[in-house]
Amino acid sequence: MSKQTAAPGTIWGVGLVGAADVTAAETFVALNPATGTPLEPAFSAAGAAEVEAACALAEAAFPSFSETAPALRATFLESVAAAVTDLGAPLIARAMAETGLPQARLEGERARTVGQLRLFADLVRAGDWVQATIDPALPDRKPLPRPDLRRRHVALGPVAVFGASNFPLAFSVAGGDTASALAAGCPVVVKGHPAHPGTGELVARAVRAAVAACGLHEGVFSYLPGPSTALGTALVADPRIKAVGFTGSRGGGLALMRVAAGRAEPIPVYAEMSAVNPVLLLPGALRARSAALAAGFVQSLTLGAGQFCTNPGLLIGIAGPELDAFAEEAGALIRASAPHAMLTAEIRARFEVAVAAMADRPGVTVAARGAAAGPGGAPAALLRTEARRVLADRALADEMFGPAALLVTAADPAELAGLIGSLGGQLTATLHLDRADEHLAAGLVPLLARKAGRILANGWPTGVEVAPAMVHGGPFPATSDGRSTSVGTLAIERFLRPVCYQDLPDALLPPPLRPDNPWHLPRRIDGTLNG
Amino acid sequence: MSKQTAAPGTIWGVGLVGAADVTAAETFVALNPATGTPLEPAFSAAGAAEVEAACALAEAAFPSFSETAPALRATFLESVAAAVTDLGAPLIARAMAETGLPQARLEGERARTVGQLRLFADLVRAGDWVQATIDPALPDRKPLPRPDLRRRHVALGPVAVFGASNFPLAFSVAGGDTASALAAGCPVVVKGHPAHPGTGELVARAVRAAVAACGLHEGVFSYLPGPSTALGTALVADPRIKAVGFTGSRGGGLALMRVAAGRAEPIPVYAEMSAVNPVLLLPGALRARSAALAAGFVQSLTLGAGQFCTNPGLLIGIAGPELDAFAEEAGALIRASAPHAMLTAEIRARFEVAVAAMADRPGVTVAARGAAAGPGGAPAALLRTEARRVLADRALADEMFGPAALLVTAADPAELAGLIGSLGGQLTATLHLDRADEHLAAGLVPLLARKAGRILANGWPTGVEVAPAMVHGGPFPATSDGRSTSVGTLAIERFLRPVCYQDLPDALLPPPLRPDNPWHLPRRIDGTLNG
Repeated sequence: MSKQTAAPGTIWGVGLVGAADVTAAETFVALNPATGTPLEPAFSAAGAAEVEAACALAEAAFPSFSETAPALRATFLESVAAAVTDLGAPLIARAMAETGLPQARLEGERARTVGQLRLFADLVRAGDWVQATIDPALPDRKPLPRPDLRRRHVALGPVAVFGASNFPLAFSVAGGDTASALAAGCPVVVKGHPAHPGTGELVARAVRAAVAACGLHEGVFSYLPGPSTALGTALVADPRIKAVGFTGSRGGGLALMRVAAGRAEPIPVYAEMSAVNPVLLLPGALRARSAALAAGFVQSLTLGAGQFCTNPGLLIGIAGPELDAFAEEAGALIRASAPHAMLTAEIRARFEVAVAAMADRPGVTVAARGAAAGPGGAPAALLRTEARRVLADRALADEMFGPAALLVTAADPAELAGLIGSLGGQLTATLHLDRADEHLAAGLVPLLARKAGRILANGWPTGVEVAPAMVHGGPFPATSDGRSTSVGTLAIERFLRPVCYQDLPDALLPPPLRPDNPWHLPRRIDGTLNG
Repeated sequence: MSKQTAAPGTIWGVGLVGAADVTAAETFVALNPATGTPLEPAFSAAGAAEVEAACALAEAAFPSFSETAPALRATFLESVAAAVTDLGAPLIARAMAETGLPQARLEGERARTVGQLRLFADLVRAGDWVQATIDPALPDRKPLPRPDLRRRHVALGPVAVFGASNFPLAFSVAGGDTASALAAGCPVVVKGHPAHPGTGELVARAVRAAVAACGLHEGVFSYLPGPSTALGTALVADPRIKAVGFTGSRGGGLALMRVAAGRAEPIPVYAEMSAVNPVLLLPGALRARSAALAAGFVQSLTLGAGQFCTNPGLLIGIAGPELDAFAEEAGALIRASAPHAMLTAEIRARFEVAVAAMADRPGVTVAARGAAAGPGGAPAALLRTEARRVLADRALADEMFGPAALLVTAADPAELAGLIGSLGGQLTATLHLDRADEHLAAGLVPLLARKAGRILANGWPTGVEVAPAMVHGGPFPATSDGRSTSVGTLAIERFLRPVCYQDLPDALLPPPLRPDNPWHLPRRIDGTLNG
């Protein structure tokens, strides 16, 4: 079979370094997590040579790509969206086989991925992100004249993106990190996640086709699949890489932070790592609707086999019969829940270890467990303990990645507040409240705002809207950098830096700052927008 | 003498922990760098106990101060400005004695410091920095409804600020880092620079008076003077500190970066460290005005005894008689220049070591040296070498902090471009050009934009305007974080993080996001500003 005559959805098991398909001596295979069976074909594991080639191309692409006019860059992002859409049913089928996630979820995730690319296209065209700012010269000012000062934001440089296992489309090859880095004008080198290499290759080919169709430098995008941590380390250590986007485990994120901090030139790492996403069940809400809360909780907990970054892993309530009623109802639903396959056998194994370790800690009981199932299936779990235990043993606030949560009983509102204060950084924090709870909640919201990037009322954190006001981030250790978000339009700022031009002749100014404003960008002139 | 009856400008030699004056067993004295004589009084050296107390107070102040209405916070910044102004002539006299800087320079620096505080007051009132963003609920959207999402930026937490030696007012106790952190709503703990403790204490008392006059929590501001690195390390390591502002040496900045990265919760460090601020003398400009360029260069080089972060320490031209003429003229002016006292004896000694080490490197010659002077006086220096030498020996691009520059001859434009590409990050890069040079310059500006935070044409980098379009920052190692600036209104963003509120009842929303917009902030609603 030659690449010229093969069907367009064929998976070749290669890396993509710019326009070239590359193969390596070492290979790996993907496994179907529901069955444990290997999937065809074998994949080349990218290594140091591919990192070198991809980074050299990315650096070569930077000068032209970072200065593309907004219209072209937006068209490019829309072309990626169209090319991913055009992958059609074979993409969904492959992703189902590689991840064990159901069809409807993956179709929704594709829609979200494509919508995210289009949202960034709109953002790039609107141009606010350039933050074009002009302080005109004041030649007669005393005691000193003011020079002509013009500022814009520019792309940081080539960016390394690490595909995540749990969202094989929305947080992977053409996911939010890639979309926002490309929108900022940064070439991207993706380290493909080894659990879904076929899905990754299909999407990577779609991105590459868009690069070619838009006449961009081939180095704008490369894709390096592989199972080794050495691959990721080499990529982050490469001096041409100027920022890193990562979604995954805390251990993985911390390791990349260390590599980045140890470089001759340290670079920012945007690692979205782990969270237990506390959910506060306030007394009025429990009195009014404990059954509905239990149903909502178990649905959120087991969604996608509990493999959401925003999974509700820590429930907190105040001691009383309402909380016990909730626990009863949630426990019954947990016991009746059907186990879902997890993403990989390793994740499945780690989940069981984490649940067992938590259950073994003093003062923790297993309130309910779902039925066991086949090799990939993970039975949901609800554990219980008391707030004083968590205050004394920080390991009780650790994440159990998967469909497991710890229900914590606080003795009173003061202990509840103290418990919140003791927690590390979180992606989300949720309040379930009734009108009668508002006084209590008013004191809790400021505490939660110091701990989390997003605060919800009367909802569940597992849905993450892609929108301008979204924050999918939060203080360490939820992320490596609580000043940013990896979802929503604000994500573009992670990959930009400001540059000021002082007294430059018009001919030497970049287009956003020229007097004739050829790109028609919004600009703040002498303090006034579009002045 | 009691504190009740003493003159208001009295210096007590203490630390300020909130409202309390604190003393410690260990003391240190300031020296007049021009004479080497000690200055009265002796100063308490703050230590671990003062760090603990100041951080506890800062944490206690955070909940109220971070949520002050913009009007109050702006009034507070203006009160600080007024209180610093009210310090009058005694402040200038003390600063002259402690730094050796002349009266006019310090009066100008005070005007800049006060203007900076007022600029941040205006910024806080205008409120764009909150980035209030509202995406209203779309309950009927298919396939899923959109929740109500509201985002704002909030203060990071207590901030540690390190006063710099070279700007005892504008980059010290109430300088740009402090002004921007307070503007963001962060309590500040200043580690006072030991070279100007009297100046520092006077300004610290002015800030404290403004805290009290505005009815703010005493923990909003503390001041810890001391000569030990242990003091700074303890402050950065304190878990209540959430960000660091620093201006100083590369060694000092790198040390703080390591402390911050090694914490249980790593925090951002904004360290402005070192730069040689390359100045490109293009052929047409040299032909047209080499004498004027030489005069401008030597004036910029020797300003403030060469102790500006933006000092022009690296001149680059293309081989030819025009460049040699410039070197002759600059050399003559250097030889005729009067030596100025440097800030401290240690800085003076390090300057001489740096110049001698540079002169010893292969291929480097001393083109001109100013006359020697008293103990504090530093004679200016102009050294010369060739670009190929710098390309082979990176130490030639190191900073000599003080009035010394290296003039580098490039063989041709290609070698000039290669040399720029080899440089580390810079605060500034300057082009001197004539119309005939514009073609050459057009190719250089994008290279310079990757290296520096500010690019100037036909000026000198030592003036840093405090304005919205200013960038006083740049890629590592000029700063620890090239995504930011320490001068200008954009500096506030260093101390903020985004928080999203989803479906919160109106009563639980913070004022910037409430439907009635009580603070009258600009807001982006459904994508439209002030919608």
